[in-house]
Amino acid sequence: MNREAFYKLTYGLYLVSSLRGEKKNGFVSNAVFQVTSNPPQIAVVCNKDNFTSQLIKDSKLFSISVLKKDANPKLFGLFGFKTGATVDKFESVKHITAKTGAPIVVEESLAWFDCELINTFDVGTHNIFVGQIIDSDLLDSESEPFLYSYYRDVKKGKAPKNAPTFIANK
Amino acid sequence: MNREAFYKLTYGLYLVSSLRGEKKNGFVSNAVFQVTSNPPQIAVVCNKDNFTSQLIKDSKLFSISVLKKDANPKLFGLFGFKTGATVDKFESVKHITAKTGAPIVVEESLAWFDCELINTFDVGTHNIFVGQIIDSDLLDSESEPFLYSYYRDVKKGKAPKNAPTFIANK
Repeated sequence: MNREAFYKLTYGLYLVSSLRGEKKNGFVSNAVFQVTSNPPQIAVVCNKDNFTSQLIKDSKLFSISVLKKDANPKLFGLFGFKTGATVDKFESVKHITAKTGAPIVVEESLAWFDCELINTFDVGTHNIFVGQIIDSDLLDSESEPFLYSYYRDVKKGKAPKNAPTFIANK
Repeated sequence: MNREAFYKLTYGLYLVSSLRGEKKNGFVSNAVFQVTSNPPQIAVVCNKDNFTSQLIKDSKLFSISVLKKDANPKLFGLFGFKTGATVDKFESVKHITAKTGAPIVVEESLAWFDCELINTFDVGTHNIFVGQIIDSDLLDSESEPFLYSYYRDVKKGKAPKNAPTFIANK
């Protein structure tokens, strides 16, 4: 098996958010993809240890913000490498409240999706959460999305340890 | 809901192939993504009406070829808009046989994955097939992958009607 092959898979970069009561949280994900068009459903792969994972399972709702190219690195530090169990990630980040009640990060974002959890599929260390899209909006039609390959190759960004693409010995 | 938001999701373009007995088939997919690192598992979203979908369900194996940027348009015509029920798509395409036995298209490809089907998740019109990666290789480290956005915006390519991203009125 040649692990270099994995780097030829293409992903964007997203913030996936949810809440439980007053507690909001979110994490950086590269594994977001539309699964059906009718009805519009979107899936996100989430490590079971992620704090946001617990919030999504409990509240059955989540949002996805599509990060724009060269989004402020503070978002990666905050959403990618800290746990919401001890930090309020939303305190310093511009966000709105979705129809479902989920928080949506609009800072550094091109577009967003507001989702109701329909299915949770167990794939081992991670779950695939499938949500029906209740609402969506485009915030910036001109800018390009942040590609995971650009983050990794040009910006020299690392995958958080809970990412589906994390490789320990790289 | 603003459908324009959907165009900010990032995907690559892939050929997903399988076989049943002597019958090989494959289709163009944008919905391919790694779901776990340990063990390495990859998922592909496949319309239930796809002929390849039946082959994957029966044989429990599939391969993924990562298309390179500006891959020959004949592949899109052949793999994206014809059904393998009546056409032998592999007759004129350079391919190898994987460890699992699946055919792997190596023409116009940067990398490939050979997979054993582990799970099939029903999401309505489509299934999510999750495979454990048995083998993989990198064929071309220099070229870039074909982005779905590039195919759509620059090459003016259309989504096949069975794609998760198909929109009838576009």
